[in-house]
Amino acid sequence: MHSDDRARAALRRHIPMLEWARQYSRADLGGDLLAGIITAILLVPQAMAFALLAGLPPQAGLYASILPPVIYAVFGTSRTLAVGPVSIAAIMVAQALAQLPAGVDPLSAALALALLVGAMLIVLGTLRMGLLANFLSHPVLSGFTSAAAVVIIAAQLPSLLGVTMPRAWRPADVPASVTALNPYALALGAAAIALLWFAASPLERTLRRFGVGAKSAVIATKTAPLIVVLASTVAVAALDLDMAHGVAVVGVLPAGLPEFSFPLPGWELLRTLLPAAALIAIVNYVESVSIAKTLANRRRQTIDPNQELLALGAANLSAAISGGMPVAGGFSRTMVNFNAGARTQAAAVITALLVAMVALLFTPLLAHVPKAALAAIIILAVSRLIDLRTALHAWRYDRVDGAVLVTTALGVLLLGIESGLVAGLVLSLLAYVWRASRPHFAVLGRVPGSEHFRNVLRYTNLETWPHILLLRVDEHLSFANTAYLEQVMMQQVAEKGRLKHLVLVCGGINGVDFSALEMLVKLTSSLRDAGITLHLAEVKGPVMDRLRGTALMRMLAPGRVFLSAHEAVEMLA
Amino acid sequence: MHSDDRARAALRRHIPMLEWARQYSRADLGGDLLAGIITAILLVPQAMAFALLAGLPPQAGLYASILPPVIYAVFGTSRTLAVGPVSIAAIMVAQALAQLPAGVDPLSAALALALLVGAMLIVLGTLRMGLLANFLSHPVLSGFTSAAAVVIIAAQLPSLLGVTMPRAWRPADVPASVTALNPYALALGAAAIALLWFAASPLERTLRRFGVGAKSAVIATKTAPLIVVLASTVAVAALDLDMAHGVAVVGVLPAGLPEFSFPLPGWELLRTLLPAAALIAIVNYVESVSIAKTLANRRRQTIDPNQELLALGAANLSAAISGGMPVAGGFSRTMVNFNAGARTQAAAVITALLVAMVALLFTPLLAHVPKAALAAIIILAVSRLIDLRTALHAWRYDRVDGAVLVTTALGVLLLGIESGLVAGLVLSLLAYVWRASRPHFAVLGRVPGSEHFRNVLRYTNLETWPHILLLRVDEHLSFANTAYLEQVMMQQVAEKGRLKHLVLVCGGINGVDFSALEMLVKLTSSLRDAGITLHLAEVKGPVMDRLRGTALMRMLAPGRVFLSAHEAVEMLA
Repeated sequence: MHSDDRARAALRRHIPMLEWARQYSRADLGGDLLAGIITAILLVPQAMAFALLAGLPPQAGLYASILPPVIYAVFGTSRTLAVGPVSIAAIMVAQALAQLPAGVDPLSAALALALLVGAMLIVLGTLRMGLLANFLSHPVLSGFTSAAAVVIIAAQLPSLLGVTMPRAWRPADVPASVTALNPYALALGAAAIALLWFAASPLERTLRRFGVGAKSAVIATKTAPLIVVLASTVAVAALDLDMAHGVAVVGVLPAGLPEFSFPLPGWELLRTLLPAAALIAIVNYVESVSIAKTLANRRRQTIDPNQELLALGAANLSAAISGGMPVAGGFSRTMVNFNAGARTQAAAVITALLVAMVALLFTPLLAHVPKAALAAIIILAVSRLIDLRTALHAWRYDRVDGAVLVTTALGVLLLGIESGLVAGLVLSLLAYVWRASRPHFAVLGRVPGSEHFRNVLRYTNLETWPHILLLRVDEHLSFANTAYLEQVMMQQVAEKGRLKHLVLVCGGINGVDFSALEMLVKLTSSLRDAGITLHLAEVKGPVMDRLRGTALMRMLAPGRVFLSAHEAVEMLA
Repeated sequence: MHSDDRARAALRRHIPMLEWARQYSRADLGGDLLAGIITAILLVPQAMAFALLAGLPPQAGLYASILPPVIYAVFGTSRTLAVGPVSIAAIMVAQALAQLPAGVDPLSAALALALLVGAMLIVLGTLRMGLLANFLSHPVLSGFTSAAAVVIIAAQLPSLLGVTMPRAWRPADVPASVTALNPYALALGAAAIALLWFAASPLERTLRRFGVGAKSAVIATKTAPLIVVLASTVAVAALDLDMAHGVAVVGVLPAGLPEFSFPLPGWELLRTLLPAAALIAIVNYVESVSIAKTLANRRRQTIDPNQELLALGAANLSAAISGGMPVAGGFSRTMVNFNAGARTQAAAVITALLVAMVALLFTPLLAHVPKAALAAIIILAVSRLIDLRTALHAWRYDRVDGAVLVTTALGVLLLGIESGLVAGLVLSLLAYVWRASRPHFAVLGRVPGSEHFRNVLRYTNLETWPHILLLRVDEHLSFANTAYLEQVMMQQVAEKGRLKHLVLVCGGINGVDFSALEMLVKLTSSLRDAGITLHLAEVKGPVMDRLRGTALMRMLAPGRVFLSAHEAVEMLA
């Protein structure tokens, strides 16, 4: 019976859909249906645009919007996260593909990337490494996102201006490009940007002022990308802009649903893609979970970080086998889904069905969509990711965090997406260790006539002894601070010529790592050579359990482990 | 007067030689003279051997043993550290030179490396980053050193066997090499190893048993490398082994003292060498300081880590301009110097003068030294660096530290010296953050009838309230633990349906980094959407100073900052 219960609990944990599907109500359906439709309207043009941004054919974006959200709906713990192609992953894919050796098909490499991302996330999920998100600090993530948005906008400018640029363009190419720009494409792009900008905020405000409800206003404004795509496509078709005037269009898409394949890369390609896949996996995961948490918190729901690793991993695997690019939970699309009233992942399933319908029926139409219009949609979407305010706040609040943010952003802009992110990550870890490297310590003296010991710098008239030094440290002892503590202790010893006993008061020490253990062993023997005995006092239970049986305990004698500073003084004074 | 005093103190701090030279006594001279001579006897063959190991002509090692130790004697804070060419730096130089583009002269690249190493150390010293040594944890250093020793021994085997191997040899080449090995070289090498091994420990023990004093025993045993070099050179000359039997010898050395030059690399070379230089700088520094500290502690002397950066930086600069390879304080040579009775850096100056004499007078002789004998000296010297015991101890004491050690060692063996070291460094930083990612927290309840609050899991019969949750966290709030803490808080909130107030009790929080600040801001607004108000209590002074004026304080209202958990309950209950 018990094992049955446990199996059922595991099932519920690993298939959160069972939970919400069981409690599904008519009220949920109303919200989910509307949200599903609105999200689909936003998603179709975005999916194609992000695929182009990644340097892939548009169907790689559409296919990533059909099966992956359905898979996430089954396994994901967020009720409202909208999973599909996202801009940051798209630019990361683009940079990974740019480094491929000649002759490798970009689309199969992208599918292999999705496969690797999915496999890594599932492995991490199986190892229950959901707290992995820790390693990406807020300043690193913020600097990375802002700079990546700038890179994305720069990458879209040629499409917006109707210029075809070589992948590695130089500033020297700019004058030639300017004369080559396509005025029709530019006009389409500029009109698209103007319309999208107007819809993004002034329109919604106006509608609300005229008494239109919040939900209707959202519907009206979020259809703007679709209107841009439709209007610009009609313009292209009516005025023959693609054939007669060279306006770049999306081009022929295969009709119908994706074909399944298992895009296992060869060893050589695997090695090339692995670093990029690892970074895409971590960024996609952190981005998705942070959005999911924000929204779950609002409705008193919770997110299981380990289950999210599994769900996002499965979604990426499903993208890989169904011809889609790597996927994540996108910020803007999830917000639209949430604000349009999505209650459960049924909304995502509805969205996926609508996208599948588009892929089945409307691909001939999509072939005429001008790239300039898609570029406008991307630029408007990612320009909101550029976040100078956070940079300013971080700098004001903490110089180190601010510096980490700026360095990450500069790294992304100057060294590229991957190197910049890695530089930021490593710098934030170094900064963390650096901050922990000078722990608080105090030389103790006894309050006369009592058993209490206090910092000699804070209290006056404390009892001290010329041959005993009591030193209290309030920090885990670890490699981050061994060098400093050793220096502190030896300085104290060098200053006190008559010293015989050094007592390390460990009441504030929650752990001793191997580096610190070795330091203490070395210190014990150095001190003995100098005629000083090291003692410990107030060692916490778990720390003592660890130390028992180590070389330190054998070396310590005749040094002792005292229960308290008081006992140490009573015995040694 | 005051500024005069300060200038004098700065002078004493930056030129420690002033200190020991002023107090120099006749007793010091006796110890220093003997130690200087013994160290020189050990150093001459080692210096040439390490230069060959680095892929450089032998004089690059000799020249690195003349000016750099004198410069260190002036600026270094260790009285007994023996600075010169060392094995680990030599193999790191070898690997850096192997990556050079064709056409670059290895010697000038090595001098440029020494220049960069020196410049970096001086910059770090000026920034007072002496605690940099922190970032290299004990397990990383131990795994790195052991694996580097294995790599060095593997690199010496061809010289010992008299085989010339291509730099990138494959296992398939082995059979051909075996038939090509030179029996004369092998015999010389084997005899050298046998003699060195005998001198290293059985001889010393035997001598002592026969009543020879410790100091004389040290002299007798430490001259073994010189005897090996002399005997094998005589054998080569007498039996014409080099010409008639193809035994590889050191070859012609330029006679006389080094010429001065300033080996500034071009931009392209600088970029190539920079990563290797950074790693050599950090390893050399950490190695030197750790030996220096061990010995200083024994005599109640202290080491100034920042001054050491300057001193080692100056020593490397002086190596670069006087034709020497990068230098550091070597472990075995320093121990010999110390055990032979060195009292001050005067011993190092005497050693340097003797090496200079050798370079002036004996280079024609050195040309006939067989490489097999030098390989034997290196192999014996570095085989002691292979330290399986520490690996075992680390693993037993702490699985994470053990894993870091093993990974670093495997990385060095499989990926190369540099990549392995970087992998170990990054892994140890990740492990550090990982360990900090699940801080201790407690839900508090009130001891009935008192103002005391305790962990509800440890005490029974505590007062709690359905609409108030008191949560105490005992750790800096930082990016390492925000994800976990947010998860903990939201879980608590999700479990308590009637909750209205969440009070974060901050008495154990010594700092809040920007990531944690942002998390708290987001949490405040998420909680508000869920109908819960966040409050703070017992915020420490310095933390409060930081938080004032941030978005958190503006967002918090109607949430408050209470002086104590007691006050919070009084107001909210």
